[in-house]
Amino acid sequence: MAGSTFGKILKVTTWGESHGPAIGVVLDGFPAGMELSEEDIQIYLDRRKPGTSSVTTQRKESDTVQILSGVFEGKTTGTPISMMIRNEDHHSADYSEIMNCYRPGHADYTYDQKYGFRDYRGGGRSSARETACRVAAGAVAAKLLKVMGIDLCFYTAAIGDVVIDRSRFDRALIGNHPTNMPDAVAAEEALALIEEMRQAQDSVGGMVEGRIRGVPAGIGDPVFDRLDATLAQALMSVNAVKEVGIGDGLFSSLRSGSHNNDAFYTDEDGIIRKRTNHAGGILGGISDGSDIVVSAYFKPTPSIAQAQETVETDGTPKALFIHGRHDPVVVPRAVVVCECMCALTILDAMLANMSAKAENVLRFYQH
Amino acid sequence: MAGSTFGKILKVTTWGESHGPAIGVVLDGFPAGMELSEEDIQIYLDRRKPGTSSVTTQRKESDTVQILSGVFEGKTTGTPISMMIRNEDHHSADYSEIMNCYRPGHADYTYDQKYGFRDYRGGGRSSARETACRVAAGAVAAKLLKVMGIDLCFYTAAIGDVVIDRSRFDRALIGNHPTNMPDAVAAEEALALIEEMRQAQDSVGGMVEGRIRGVPAGIGDPVFDRLDATLAQALMSVNAVKEVGIGDGLFSSLRSGSHNNDAFYTDEDGIIRKRTNHAGGILGGISDGSDIVVSAYFKPTPSIAQAQETVETDGTPKALFIHGRHDPVVVPRAVVVCECMCALTILDAMLANMSAKAENVLRFYQH
Amino acid sequence: MAGSTFGKILKVTTWGESHGPAIGVVLDGFPAGMELSEEDIQIYLDRRKPGTSSVTTQRKESDTVQILSGVFEGKTTGTPISMMIRNEDHHSADYSEIMNCYRPGHADYTYDQKYGFRDYRGGGRSSARETACRVAAGAVAAKLLKVMGIDLCFYTAAIGDVVIDRSRFDRALIGNHPTNMPDAVAAEEALALIEEMRQAQDSVGGMVEGRIRGVPAGIGDPVFDRLDATLAQALMSVNAVKEVGIGDGLFSSLRSGSHNNDAFYTDEDGIIRKRTNHAGGILGGISDGSDIVVSAYFKPTPSIAQAQETVETDGTPKALFIHGRHDPVVVPRAVVVCECMCALTILDAMLANMSAKAENVLRFYQH
Amino acid sequence: MAGSTFGKILKVTTWGESHGPAIGVVLDGFPAGMELSEEDIQIYLDRRKPGTSSVTTQRKESDTVQILSGVFEGKTTGTPISMMIRNEDHHSADYSEIMNCYRPGHADYTYDQKYGFRDYRGGGRSSARETACRVAAGAVAAKLLKVMGIDLCFYTAAIGDVVIDRSRFDRALIGNHPTNMPDAVAAEEALALIEEMRQAQDSVGGMVEGRIRGVPAGIGDPVFDRLDATLAQALMSVNAVKEVGIGDGLFSSLRSGSHNNDAFYTDEDGIIRKRTNHAGGILGGISDGSDIVVSAYFKPTPSIAQAQETVETDGTPKALFIHGRHDPVVVPRAVVVCECMCALTILDAMLANMSAKAENVLRFYQH
Repeated sequence: MAGSTFGKILKVTTWGESHGPAIGVVLDGFPAGMELSEEDIQIYLDRRKPGTSSVTTQRKESDTVQILSGVFEGKTTGTPISMMIRNEDHHSADYSEIMNCYRPGHADYTYDQKYGFRDYRGGGRSSARETACRVAAGAVAAKLLKVMGIDLCFYTAAIGDVVIDRSRFDRALIGNHPTNMPDAVAAEEALALIEEMRQAQDSVGGMVEGRIRGVPAGIGDPVFDRLDATLAQALMSVNAVKEVGIGDGLFSSLRSGSHNNDAFYTDEDGIIRKRTNHAGGILGGISDGSDIVVSAYFKPTPSIAQAQETVETDGTPKALFIHGRHDPVVVPRAVVVCECMCALTILDAMLANMSAKAENVLRFYQH
Repeated sequence: MAGSTFGKILKVTTWGESHGPAIGVVLDGFPAGMELSEEDIQIYLDRRKPGTSSVTTQRKESDTVQILSGVFEGKTTGTPISMMIRNEDHHSADYSEIMNCYRPGHADYTYDQKYGFRDYRGGGRSSARETACRVAAGAVAAKLLKVMGIDLCFYTAAIGDVVIDRSRFDRALIGNHPTNMPDAVAAEEALALIEEMRQAQDSVGGMVEGRIRGVPAGIGDPVFDRLDATLAQALMSVNAVKEVGIGDGLFSSLRSGSHNNDAFYTDEDGIIRKRTNHAGGILGGISDGSDIVVSAYFKPTPSIAQAQETVETDGTPKALFIHGRHDPVVVPRAVVVCECMCALTILDAMLANMSAKAENVLRFYQH
Repeated sequence: MAGSTFGKILKVTTWGESHGPAIGVVLDGFPAGMELSEEDIQIYLDRRKPGTSSVTTQRKESDTVQILSGVFEGKTTGTPISMMIRNEDHHSADYSEIMNCYRPGHADYTYDQKYGFRDYRGGGRSSARETACRVAAGAVAAKLLKVMGIDLCFYTAAIGDVVIDRSRFDRALIGNHPTNMPDAVAAEEALALIEEMRQAQDSVGGMVEGRIRGVPAGIGDPVFDRLDATLAQALMSVNAVKEVGIGDGLFSSLRSGSHNNDAFYTDEDGIIRKRTNHAGGILGGISDGSDIVVSAYFKPTPSIAQAQETVETDGTPKALFIHGRHDPVVVPRAVVVCECMCALTILDAMLANMSAKAENVLRFYQH
Repeated sequence: MAGSTFGKILKVTTWGESHGPAIGVVLDGFPAGMELSEEDIQIYLDRRKPGTSSVTTQRKESDTVQILSGVFEGKTTGTPISMMIRNEDHHSADYSEIMNCYRPGHADYTYDQKYGFRDYRGGGRSSARETACRVAAGAVAAKLLKVMGIDLCFYTAAIGDVVIDRSRFDRALIGNHPTNMPDAVAAEEALALIEEMRQAQDSVGGMVEGRIRGVPAGIGDPVFDRLDATLAQALMSVNAVKEVGIGDGLFSSLRSGSHNNDAFYTDEDGIIRKRTNHAGGILGGISDGSDIVVSAYFKPTPSIAQAQETVETDGTPKALFIHGRHDPVVVPRAVVVCECMCALTILDAMLANMSAKAENVLRFYQH
């Protein structure tokens, strides 16, 4: 069954394998008339690109996006925005080592079981390369959110057990330090841990955190399409994510109600606010006007260079050595992926919300 | 926008407010020909019912389900199964205390912001009473899963900071101890904590864990509709859930790849298995044949009897005292809700999977 | 697979069999704050009710609707509106004649083939009784459309080969003449034809036409969700409909382009209009501001009292006599069903359209 | 809102404007393991291509399809099949004549009203060029249907008032005569009519008919997703279609029930059949095993070379002359488009049907 489409009013459909001729995305339902250029999108894609630092793989991917439809004379037309990224060196690789066996921690075995065979070239459809398409679509959504005054601040909050100290929060480090950690001390510690892992031919996981400021109260739908539920789907669908939290997440489960409830008060401008934000900006599945706070925990990269026990597709035991260079950690590159998935989710919910009140529907159609 | 429908092939639509005449659910897309009676469903609803123990509220809800359609001569017909539960004492309550103010931790404020007004009777649509409808639908799905040999084992794994010791796992306690904790020692400890909270006019959260055994490898769809992503949506959509994990969840983020990867091997029967199950039975969003393991963290019940700071709907400060009896913890009652949401998610994915291979489509239409 | 849900933002889900305890509908995604009472809906249901005239069946159905959720203090809440209609005399009928055979022109055979058995009581789910639920939902949509100044005028345009003469159009006859034909001469002629058919133990078909005035230009989405395509689905999904036209429909296929194109001009108020409306108010799948004109052709009622050749479920030949009273024509009662399906389709498209322009999204979120 | 996606299990998403760099389609949910090459698709695209005959436009479009994903080692992978067609001469055209005015019968005005501006290059998204993408996707579906023994026979049944005589039906003419009419006499008559229209700088419409043989009984879902309703949406969504019929369509509305009902009988092989097929193979929205018969009526091409009254975008009156060569009739080229839309619809319904019976679900998961 189809599973490559996300969203209700704003629909994202990604396609492509890591080693086919190209990957791409179709963004349908985006409002007409917003200025959009390939540069707007390229900036986001570049944030996902493997860097030159020791943190990420050295694979050469220029990831140049091309807009094929949905933009005319520099503005979105309201019809599908099709974006494509060519896979540059997709013929060169040697997959003889992995084509007949199942890499632990990867989707090789499960795709084989589902489909009867698989595209073994670098994971095919299950490769994290697919997330570049989400970034391209998310960049478009993020641009409109930005015009509406909504600020998405996403960063690496943990690498392994190195967690940022929020009292040292320095936003300038995001995008400028290879870890994308907004805490200079933790960032250096994390870098050392990553280097240690690399030398041990091992890998490490971590956590991405996001704070979305400026979303008005009232966004999200009741019951199954609650904003927290759709954010959870959005983030859990990112490769390697194993846990997703909203607000204080599991820490809320450790507190008493009197300490976890966020008290309401009225500020000097007569605006109703909350004293605290344990809820992470969502109550009953609907935004409350506070920062929306999300966290996504990533497992360590499954591709490691040391010997691993596995089997061939016929069941024969095999000691697997995965060659080539792989990221010892995916978390820093995944920051922009999480940000983009949340941008798409939030914008979709905001578009959906426009018809929540009959009076707004009537007002809309009266002018 | 509509948000009360869940699922793709198997669609669940719930309706109803906590204090309207009734609540209900329509389950569409369920296969024809399975025997189904109201008793099958009532068993599940009774597991959610507030008990007589000190753990749960004393509110009298008989929650008797009535099947209104979709079953003929004792079997499902393939057409929508409509189930209704009357709200028995929906006229009696007094809401003068809360109708004009926003209860902290509840959806009062956000519904008001979204819709311009709200049904203030016990939370209306945002009440956890809605989850009874999910249980009714989930009971139907669970019955078919059971025939297929799939076992869903859900339980309370933590109340506050009292966590079960899995080495003392005793399944018989689930459903028989008021906490639904499968560890006799932790269960008693948790009971004491709950009692302490009640006396302090406070509340506490916890964690529900689930293990789903017998799901074949290959279930789930790539990219956005990954099995872990839809399970995350399903669980996060349950009232009070703030974090959802798959397999080892966040603990995976603390390990190295060499310790987190699950090695494959071939057992004596020639079946490919995994040495460990850190992944929780899902790789690349698709089931791998191991137990599917999920966890859902709940915040403490927001309704507490002690004084809370809040505001009236016009912004006037108010000290709120919530009267009536409320559960000091929702986790034990939420076990069956989580189980039912997962049953619906898994069955939907299994139905969707039937057309994954062309050879299966051809075989199906050849006889 | 589920098939009982219609709409994108405004979702209608119907349930129920003709002879179960009740039928019903859940309308989700309807904007909050519109006044709504059971009387608003009952008026529409009464238009569908079998009358006392010779045109329709004498079956006693009071079809009293009950709102179970989604309305609070007389206004829609934005959450699912659940409506139920009890089946009053659902135990009394005798189905021994039809339970083991396939009625020609009915869905008996196809449901049996699909599901392995069927609810043989009066057609079960395939009964036109299900359309009462669409009328209940459509009445809600129609009320909001009316406030927006949109007028839906639906009527019988043909019974068999008796077609109305549009130069004699008399709207007052709709709802007041048993045929619902807005032409006094044709209406009487049609009545005679129906009586003739009744006496011959036969039945006759016809055509429902609808004109929807006041829909602004710009409603509908490109490509697959074109307004004409969704109207076609909506109307073709009504029992007994075999053909659906938009505007001049098939007559357009008989004209040359120079006679079929609707010329644009600017009227004295500076508004761009069309000289003619062959297109029926839709160009490229999007409304053009002219009247939206639809037509739906109905086959004759398949239930006729004369002997019919058929087979039993095991293939044994059988001469079938269908007892009981049946409508010799369904068209007059189907008028309100078509009207309601179009109301739901148009309102859904109008809600969807609110986010078509980025400038409207920005304006919405600036106040 | 998004409108460029069609289907439930098998999802088709098209993108692209007539004069952008490319158009394309993503087909998601297609079963894995079917052999597929670009040649399979090109054959269908070539059937849609403007020919060298006098019937169609002389525009040079090679319409070469490229598969970008979803096929590996010659077989479908189960993941999205992305196909792209480059627009070859998209820079050359001169649109100064139409960019500031509304062509009668086109979507210029309605897109402008909806989106605030439009891509005026050849209709942009509203161009019939988009249907090439539907053909590419439909070719893939048709291939699997063919393996299942399902035969789709689509042809031109009428051009203007020249209708085929079914007693002279000659399938060999389809694809070989420029009209695609399977009746040699009518085909020549139609050709003469088309030539007459061309010389008069005018255009003409017509009707496409399709017969789908071999669909087993039981396909389609009840109520809104009836097979006839989805076929109606599918066909009405094709550019220029104004009316859609199933089986005898409107002719059924002119008959009495005793003449329109299809009697059931058991043939010599013990198979239940119908004596006639007025229903067009669908009863109650579900296939009955007979040929599925559909008809789609097309309006005449709106682009005609003679002077037309219209207005500029600011309302100024204008006499429009559309230059360039345009098809005086679109019907022959639309045959394959209708066929492909039906192939997609039927296959989607067949995939959905696999889970209709619980016994089939159980059987599927037992081996």
